[in-house]
Amino acid sequence: MQPGPISLEQACAKLAELWSPRVVGRVNDQYVKVAKVQGEFPWHTHEREDEMFLVLRGRLRIGREAADGGPVSVGPGEFFVVPRGLRHNTAAEEETWIVLIETVTTEHAGDEKTDLARSLEEQLRPL
Amino acid sequence: MQPGPISLEQACAKLAELWSPRVVGRVNDQYVKVAKVQGEFPWHTHEREDEMFLVLRGRLRIGREAADGGPVSVGPGEFFVVPRGLRHNTAAEEETWIVLIETVTTEHAGDEKTDLARSLEEQLRPL
Repeated sequence: MQPGPISLEQACAKLAELWSPRVVGRVNDQYVKVAKVQGEFPWHTHEREDEMFLVLRGRLRIGREAADGGPVSVGPGEFFVVPRGLRHNTAAEEETWIVLIETVTTEHAGDEKTDLARSLEEQLRPL
Repeated sequence: MQPGPISLEQACAKLAELWSPRVVGRVNDQYVKVAKVQGEFPWHTHEREDEMFLVLRGRLRIGREAADGGPVSVGPGEFFVVPRGLRHNTAAEEETWIVLIETVTTEHAGDEKTDLARSLEEQLRPL
């Protein structure tokens, strides 16, 4: 059991590395993760899993193909769910703090091979 | 697909009634809900589902039996996950705005019969 409340901002503040999500909680079959991002993460798809992005600070640009509605700009206090099967990327001009909620089996970069991808083992290291 | 980003604060601001969660999103098999609470909600248990509480404004007191660690006080930007099977209640002295993440099948008041319980149909009405 989680010993007490967890501050999402304080958890984010502990992150030393960009694009390296860390698990801070679990609800049912979903992990709650925090990440600091800036720059761009490659296009990829999660065939079987939706992915929720909640922005704490900064602004996250979620790229979608034009046919799927084009890019989405997510600001502080806003969330967006990328549905399974939708090819997407993420980008941020300034340092942006985000919360991710996704199924425990979700691969960081989905179907894409990239050096930016973090293993689940890395994401599970205590902050 | 969700048409665009959703502001959790703006969704909460639209709630007219206390203790009446409304679904604002879905990620995998979990609903994302917002609720305004003040006063106390009865003790109950969800036998098969964890329940995540994230506080936006105010302060939420989550009661747990002493043997389970006693009450938890959750402030703005903090979250706490009540694990399945744990008898709990929720209370707030001031008007408190929260986000709930829970399995789509979760009953509002779990095993407890109370007039405060809202049906899933009520929770799914557009805000």
